Amino acid sequence: MANLGEISVSAALNLLSAFAFLVAFAILRLQPINDRVYFPKWYRRGIRNSPRRSGVCVTRFVNLDWRTYIKFLNWMPAAFRMPELELIDHAGLDSVVYIRIYLLGLKVIGPLAVLAFLVLVPVNWKGETLEGVKNLAYNDIDKLSISNVPDGSKRFWVHIVMSYVFALWTFYVLYVEYKEVAAMRLRYLASENRRPDQFTVLVRNVPPDPDETVSEHIEHFFRVVYNANKLAKLVQKKKSLQNWYTYYFNKYERTSKRPITRTGFGGVVGTKVDAIDYYSSEIQKLSEAEALEREKVLSDPKAIVRAAFVSFKSRWAAAVCAQTQLSHNPTIWLTEWAPEPRDVYWRNLAIPYFDLTIRRLLMAIALFFLIFFFMIPIAFVQSLANIEGIEKVFPFLTPLIETKSVRSFIQGFLPGIVLKIFLILLPTILMMMSKVEGFSSCSSLDRRSAGKYHLFLLINVFLGSIITGTAFQQLKTFLHQPLTEIPKTVGESIPMKATFFITYIMVDGWAGIAAEILRLVPLVIFHLKNMFLVKTEQDREEAMDPGCLNFATYEPKIQLYFLLGLVYSAVTPVLLPFVIIFFAFSYVVFRHQVINVYAQRYESGGSFWPDVHRRLLIGLLISQLLLMGLLSTKSVEKSTIALLPLPILTIWFHVYCKGRFQSAFVRFSLQDAMTKDTLERATEPNLNLRAYLKDAYVHPVFKGRIHFESPLLVPDEENNTLVLTRRSS
Amino acid sequence: MANLGEISVSAALNLLSAFAFLVAFAILRLQPINDRVYFPKWYRRGIRNSPRRSGVCVTRFVNLDWRTYIKFLNWMPAAFRMPELELIDHAGLDSVVYIRIYLLGLKVIGPLAVLAFLVLVPVNWKGETLEGVKNLAYNDIDKLSISNVPDGSKRFWVHIVMSYVFALWTFYVLYVEYKEVAAMRLRYLASENRRPDQFTVLVRNVPPDPDETVSEHIEHFFRVVYNANKLAKLVQKKKSLQNWYTYYFNKYERTSKRPITRTGFGGVVGTKVDAIDYYSSEIQKLSEAEALEREKVLSDPKAIVRAAFVSFKSRWAAAVCAQTQLSHNPTIWLTEWAPEPRDVYWRNLAIPYFDLTIRRLLMAIALFFLIFFFMIPIAFVQSLANIEGIEKVFPFLTPLIETKSVRSFIQGFLPGIVLKIFLILLPTILMMMSKVEGFSSCSSLDRRSAGKYHLFLLINVFLGSIITGTAFQQLKTFLHQPLTEIPKTVGESIPMKATFFITYIMVDGWAGIAAEILRLVPLVIFHLKNMFLVKTEQDREEAMDPGCLNFATYEPKIQLYFLLGLVYSAVTPVLLPFVIIFFAFSYVVFRHQVINVYAQRYESGGSFWPDVHRRLLIGLLISQLLLMGLLSTKSVEKSTIALLPLPILTIWFHVYCKGRFQSAFVRFSLQDAMTKDTLERATEPNLNLRAYLKDAYVHPVFKGRIHFESPLLVPDEENNTLVLTRRSS
Repeated sequence: MANLGEISVSAALNLLSAFAFLVAFAILRLQPINDRVYFPKWYRRGIRNSPRRSGVCVTRFVNLDWRTYIKFLNWMPAAFRMPELELIDHAGLDSVVYIRIYLLGLKVIGPLAVLAFLVLVPVNWKGETLEGVKNLAYNDIDKLSISNVPDGSKRFWVHIVMSYVFALWTFYVLYVEYKEVAAMRLRYLASENRRPDQFTVLVRNVPPDPDETVSEHIEHFFRVVYNANKLAKLVQKKKSLQNWYTYYFNKYERTSKRPITRTGFGGVVGTKVDAIDYYSSEIQKLSEAEALEREKVLSDPKAIVRAAFVSFKSRWAAAVCAQTQLSHNPTIWLTEWAPEPRDVYWRNLAIPYFDLTIRRLLMAIALFFLIFFFMIPIAFVQSLANIEGIEKVFPFLTPLIETKSVRSFIQGFLPGIVLKIFLILLPTILMMMSKVEGFSSCSSLDRRSAGKYHLFLLINVFLGSIITGTAFQQLKTFLHQPLTEIPKTVGESIPMKATFFITYIMVDGWAGIAAEILRLVPLVIFHLKNMFLVKTEQDREEAMDPGCLNFATYEPKIQLYFLLGLVYSAVTPVLLPFVIIFFAFSYVVFRHQVINVYAQRYESGGSFWPDVHRRLLIGLLISQLLLMGLLSTKSVEKSTIALLPLPILTIWFHVYCKGRFQSAFVRFSLQDAMTKDTLERATEPNLNLRAYLKDAYVHPVFKGRIHFESPLLVPDEENNTLVLTRRSS
Repeated sequence: MANLGEISVSAALNLLSAFAFLVAFAILRLQPINDRVYFPKWYRRGIRNSPRRSGVCVTRFVNLDWRTYIKFLNWMPAAFRMPELELIDHAGLDSVVYIRIYLLGLKVIGPLAVLAFLVLVPVNWKGETLEGVKNLAYNDIDKLSISNVPDGSKRFWVHIVMSYVFALWTFYVLYVEYKEVAAMRLRYLASENRRPDQFTVLVRNVPPDPDETVSEHIEHFFRVVYNANKLAKLVQKKKSLQNWYTYYFNKYERTSKRPITRTGFGGVVGTKVDAIDYYSSEIQKLSEAEALEREKVLSDPKAIVRAAFVSFKSRWAAAVCAQTQLSHNPTIWLTEWAPEPRDVYWRNLAIPYFDLTIRRLLMAIALFFLIFFFMIPIAFVQSLANIEGIEKVFPFLTPLIETKSVRSFIQGFLPGIVLKIFLILLPTILMMMSKVEGFSSCSSLDRRSAGKYHLFLLINVFLGSIITGTAFQQLKTFLHQPLTEIPKTVGESIPMKATFFITYIMVDGWAGIAAEILRLVPLVIFHLKNMFLVKTEQDREEAMDPGCLNFATYEPKIQLYFLLGLVYSAVTPVLLPFVIIFFAFSYVVFRHQVINVYAQRYESGGSFWPDVHRRLLIGLLISQLLLMGLLSTKSVEKSTIALLPLPILTIWFHVYCKGRFQSAFVRFSLQDAMTKDTLERATEPNLNLRAYLKDAYVHPVFKGRIHFESPLLVPDEENNTLVLTRRSS
């Protein structure tokens, strides 16, 4: 284990490398050629134009003005300059609430760190248990941690009291924050402009009717949802073929030589053909298939799914419809607020209720196996990816591999790389699992995936680092251990792992954030696309990928740092500054990214906050249980009883906050709906809502291609809600 | 342990005693003097009149017609004669759904028993492990149980397969039943006559307003709720004093001697006074205090609680208001369906949200201590109630107590009696705890208490009987045992406890039901009241206490028998017939009681069914875990894996049913509301709803005494829901 000096060196090194990233970022950012990578948001909004249009050749690509380099860190104050209200307007509430999580981290962990350094560190330091022990396993950090307090000492009461103080402070900050976010959300919803989803309700499980087709059944009120999944695939495939076609065509233009490709998998196997002819004929074929399929979807009654978007003439009527039960049969005519059009996940609208429960059951089982047995397939791949395996597949590499240095490199790094690839793929796998579960909006998919990833990190990273062995071995141990022993076993090893987690925070946290701002992957992809595919200005627009805040991946990681901060606040306070630096650094970086880079795919109005709040409390609960376990191994028996009210209080706080605030995130009030309706009628009496809502909820593949008869709006007098339901009997 | 012969004898004895109860019931029931005890429902409905009015003196009290005695069991077929629809009309849906639980018991356990006797009993019998063992601890019953199968035998696969069959059958029956009950409830709600609660919404957390009093704030729409808790107490006290007054007055009339009482506690201590004068003056004083308090409540703005009953002009408007969120602040103007007027628990309407969560937290902790530490106060009382204690308090009893037989009787029975008294008081204690938790309707109080009692029975009766020692000792053992060991420890002792539970079913179950139909306590109380208090026919009407189905006590007990049936179906099938007899007998008895005796205090439309369903599945889950534990001690390691899908399937089934049916029990559909509204407008166009709803939601202590200005009804056009909310800002 490292001592304080070594940690300092490591911290300095990591800070330096982060600094290097920042310098690289500052330089790359100033080059006009990269402008679209680092400021895509402004392009999207049409405020910024390509700086390359004007000027001489070199300055169009490279920034030669040396003065700009001096102020290379001025993006940081710039990131703070935009006030919150403007930021909401600029980037949406989701982004603003998201970066508040980092601020919340500072608010929670900051005072905890100050208190811990003022009170706990001196108490631990004076413990002097380790002074006498001439064992090199102990070091400076351990002297500042709870390990330095002798067994059975009365000093532990300081830790117990402090853990109450910490918990109460966390409650206070979380409560204020929840209240504030709820208020922000309500203000945001109230101030929002007219949006189609305010008028629209998603109706699912439309019952079959022997006399009418579904379309007739609901056509007067419903924007019928067509099952365009197959069509969407065709459109996707055509787009990819068109890309290849453009690629080869560009190549041909440059080289004046007809390019050749193969018809088989990925252009690698199969017979050789002229690439341009091949792809143009393939595109032709696909276009015909697409037209056929589109015709089929529109005419085939089976392609209409038992779900529909219903638009009302007023927000009030939509609010009533979304929140009430229409039919007495609770499983048909299910209504819920429609997600905003961008947020709809079209593939999942058609799934019946029974299938949904089966899918969720299967995915729950799959998640269990993924978490506890993911090492098995990885070990299998690792066993394949050894030197003998490589030699067998690529015999010509044998002489190279047999070189000693290469050999040891492969043996040392290959297993790690396989694992790393799995970990990079993991969020995608989890997102696929969430999609199988059948959620109907992208925002709920993101929230759901975040939950899964959080569980994975909790078990495989946090617990897995503390107790050695795979998650499955841990599970086995835990099952064969008394319930009260688990916090003891884990709690006991907590202080010893402090240095490991400090390194983890620096390598994964700090470096991760620095890499985030550098945007290396989008940078490379942008320039590759620019080189091979981009012909027109519009192509360049498309090549620019602003990306978006990946809630499903980032949020669970933040939760891990919260957890580390909370767990170590009473055990090894030295760890806290590292967490604080992570939060502060992240806050600046993400504020910058949100302002300049990301384009959110949807706007959910901060609806993920209840999840953030709950997971934070789970972290607090875990920290309390582990402290109980740790103290009970320190011969202070009464401590368990003294700490017992803490978890109970935490659970109660969760229940209280849930009841107090949660409904602001799932329901919409009639009062607000009515206010907006009244206001709108007064200011825009001649608004043609029908035209406004006409194409809002149309499957993307149909958009702008087909003219549906315009939807009849549901007027908002009372009995119209029933006109709709009357048909369901 | 008893063998098959002994169990048979015991069963015969218990059957005989139950039969004796039945004979006693048959005879008592036929006496005209008891008519009001055994047929109060018919009196309530005004269909039956006192048979004592006519005839000669003796026949007014005793039935001398010997022919009626011959057919003394004909109440049984009579109980079946009323068809279900008529029964719903006669006794309400709650009662009908309640007796269906017993029928459900037959439907679930009956086929399980048949299958178990056809398949498992022969397999167990042929096991012949115990044949060789010349140990008297084993007996005939064990030969038919799973204990007779040798360790590691392949015969256990039969048990595993059968436990799947049992679970699937239970799922099937439960699913069909849930569906049927939901349909019954919907039919019932649809066919119901006009009821005030259909038009009324309970609004809680009315926000304070600086400009208006609460009363003004909501007076146009709300039947303001007055905090009449103190007034209600006064009215209650006055009623009790009036009873005493009547008692002494009757005594005076009979004996012509002025009765004397004491002013102190319970008329035992204090100065002697003339009883009639004393009570009449006390009543006078209380009447004045009551008038004062009533005046105060009506005029004092602080006596108005922040809750109100709002009645609407149509059911549709009420349905919309009850199911939607009015204000954007999720904690004010909370709306829910009003319970029907009889069902309102007035004392709890005034509790703010924060207090509610604190109360629930405290009661959860109290329940934990009640369940795990209830033996401590009981042991304390038992230690006081010993012979020396009694001798100290009542020295004059010493000679009697010192008699050997009396002495041993006290030593043997007193501790048992203390425990028995506690167990009798327990449902009352649990109900008080539920009241503290702040539920606003009697039906929810009943459901909540049932949940608590179920937990108590599960831990202290079921687990407590299997593992010796107090619940607290068990808790300690479980906490210090690995999680996987718990089902093993419990499962292992399951087969050995079969005879104990058979006896328990006979003594507690069979005898309890027989006592239920005899109604000994109401019988005695009725005759005592008749003797001392009754003067007029109306007094007699009041002395008659029909009682009601005590859901909070009975339902958890049924669940215990379900649990026993499910647990022993795969282990010791011999127990099943005893459970079946319990269910069949209960079904007949409760059908009779529901028809002839009980008068329900409220009607919730079978809203307790989701609880019944959930607890039954908990029982099934426990039985599966215990079987896994039992088999893993039998050297069949693979069995655990083979049984693992069962609990997962059970949990999934619960989730599925919850999503499928639960909303039928908590929400009301707009479709139904509209249908009823339309129908009513067509048939009764001139209905004066205002007059109908005028006094529906008035605190009982005000009823008929004060004329409130008639409530202005909320008309049902759209913007009126907002008129109400507009004021909340």
